[in-house]
Amino acid sequence: MIATNSYAAQSTTSPLTPFNFERRDVGAHDVQIEILYCGVCHSDIHQVRDEWGGSIYPMVPGHEIVGRIVKVGDHVKKFKVGDLAGIGCFVDSCRECVNCKDGLEQYCTEGMTGTYNSRERLTGAPTYGGYSTQIVVDENYTLKVSDKLDLAGVAPLLCAGITTYSPLRFAGVKKGHKVAVLGLGGLGHMAVKFAAAFGAEVTMLSGSPSKEADAKKLGAHHFALTSDEATMKSLVGQFDFILNTVSAQHSYSTYLNLLKTNGSMIIVGIPSKPAEIPAFDLVGGRKSILGSMIGGIAETQEMLDFCAEHNIVSDVEVIDINYINEAYERVLKSDVKYRFVIDINSLKK
Amino acid sequence: MIATNSYAAQSTTSPLTPFNFERRDVGAHDVQIEILYCGVCHSDIHQVRDEWGGSIYPMVPGHEIVGRIVKVGDHVKKFKVGDLAGIGCFVDSCRECVNCKDGLEQYCTEGMTGTYNSRERLTGAPTYGGYSTQIVVDENYTLKVSDKLDLAGVAPLLCAGITTYSPLRFAGVKKGHKVAVLGLGGLGHMAVKFAAAFGAEVTMLSGSPSKEADAKKLGAHHFALTSDEATMKSLVGQFDFILNTVSAQHSYSTYLNLLKTNGSMIIVGIPSKPAEIPAFDLVGGRKSILGSMIGGIAETQEMLDFCAEHNIVSDVEVIDINYINEAYERVLKSDVKYRFVIDINSLKK
Repeated sequence: MIATNSYAAQSTTSPLTPFNFERRDVGAHDVQIEILYCGVCHSDIHQVRDEWGGSIYPMVPGHEIVGRIVKVGDHVKKFKVGDLAGIGCFVDSCRECVNCKDGLEQYCTEGMTGTYNSRERLTGAPTYGGYSTQIVVDENYTLKVSDKLDLAGVAPLLCAGITTYSPLRFAGVKKGHKVAVLGLGGLGHMAVKFAAAFGAEVTMLSGSPSKEADAKKLGAHHFALTSDEATMKSLVGQFDFILNTVSAQHSYSTYLNLLKTNGSMIIVGIPSKPAEIPAFDLVGGRKSILGSMIGGIAETQEMLDFCAEHNIVSDVEVIDINYINEAYERVLKSDVKYRFVIDINSLKK
Repeated sequence: MIATNSYAAQSTTSPLTPFNFERRDVGAHDVQIEILYCGVCHSDIHQVRDEWGGSIYPMVPGHEIVGRIVKVGDHVKKFKVGDLAGIGCFVDSCRECVNCKDGLEQYCTEGMTGTYNSRERLTGAPTYGGYSTQIVVDENYTLKVSDKLDLAGVAPLLCAGITTYSPLRFAGVKKGHKVAVLGLGGLGHMAVKFAAAFGAEVTMLSGSPSKEADAKKLGAHHFALTSDEATMKSLVGQFDFILNTVSAQHSYSTYLNLLKTNGSMIIVGIPSKPAEIPAFDLVGGRKSILGSMIGGIAETQEMLDFCAEHNIVSDVEVIDINYINEAYERVLKSDVKYRFVIDINSLKK
């Protein structure tokens, strides 16, 4: 067993505090990763506070993990000791259903095994995430990470990156398309980078005038203030795609109206209450709403390789682990540009 | 001017009664059609009763029109006197916007000119529909109709037919797909016929056990009673597409749940209130909701040609015009298999 330091929540209401536990021994198909960086995703907070139900405590959050391989199992083929590696939102799935076989492990019909707040398929033991010094994962659920990129900036690619990359690829976004990104946060800032890298003309839709300069620095060609009526009117029927990253309650209608005929609104944010959708907003222009959740292992690797080739990383604020509870409060206020990433060295001291 | 007999509504609350008016003279690009049959669409009732707002009275409803050409303008190229012809939901559009140029005249950015309850683009004169003996329409908005098919059964193809044909084609429905059709009415019965003709395995989803035999006669391979919990549970994750024809208020969630990963629910019914859609229903399986409204002229012709080739018509109850007000009451009770069609000879007596 492998002694591991971490920060964990002991209950729905407790702050994250130091927690020591043991990882499983490295199996024949496993790699052991010494974690270097772990991103802080808004969903960490939802789960720590049991806002989605079914939380398992103690909980060690974190599913945007980058580190270096320190041990490999006897049958491991893809990795060797010393390689950089990444772990995203899941560490296992059934491997046999139609979705697993199609490389869509995130939609495994038996349910993917989350990197934390989940249970190992065989043992039923709780999974513990990346706010920790070590992790042991099957090589088939481990990603290769290039040494060309800033590793702190790579960590959020494992969730925020693939969540936006995957649906933009699925939708076929390319040069000639006009794409709007709604909401400039962890997801939104990656969506702008990818849509621009794919050749689209990108407009950032935001309620905060202060975000204009940043949006353009990230690669947006235009900025539109959603509270400005004249601007919104001028954008009616303009976009091929809208990538909607907002998880606060909001009107889908307002934005469906900005789509061209045949346009599609892609939702990756999950508001806690259902959205109200008048059928005519879709019928009156052959429009669609498409949902998407992270991405499969093969596509996550494709995304990481694309990022290495195009020098794309997440914009991050690197923090020590003892700042995590304050960081959570700031995430809730959207006071981060655009992702906190924990320097896991601070857990080793 | 061309003397025309019709039935019209004089106000929101009045029944349809005889009304004589004059059609415009046949212009250089026009054809004059002596109407033989006109289908009765639920939207006729919505508009007669001003349930969508903006109704123009007197109103002569009817946009599922089949007849024979009795006069052609000097520059008409596609038609000659004696040809069978059809008119659907619109008789004009701007012809210059991106949608008109793409053969999507139904989504004309200036608004299509409805066959009735609309205004001619040039003169502003109200348009009068097919519950009438004659109609004069630009040849570019007139369809060719085969003499191989029963003409009464062809009339509803001009609305109910194209409304279901178009999105099934757009979605690429073909052999190997599992398609569910929700609701067995005017639209639903055509959806079953087309989906089966395209090679899909078709399941009729209905709340009425009495519809099973009919659904199978129409070509459905399976019938599922939506009120049966065990049946619905067995269908979770089974369909590539669901064509949702229901315009009464209902839960989209229930049916999104029946889609496979990457599945799409196509909506052609327009409930009067917005549907509530939990984002996770879409995000948790890369599912989509797609709206669609009738079809363009070229695709409507393609559909009519497909029907002639595959011997597809609508199942109809042919009525005389003086039965129209009773027919409306029966449509509201879904008491029709599956479309009333007016024999326009009964207007000529």
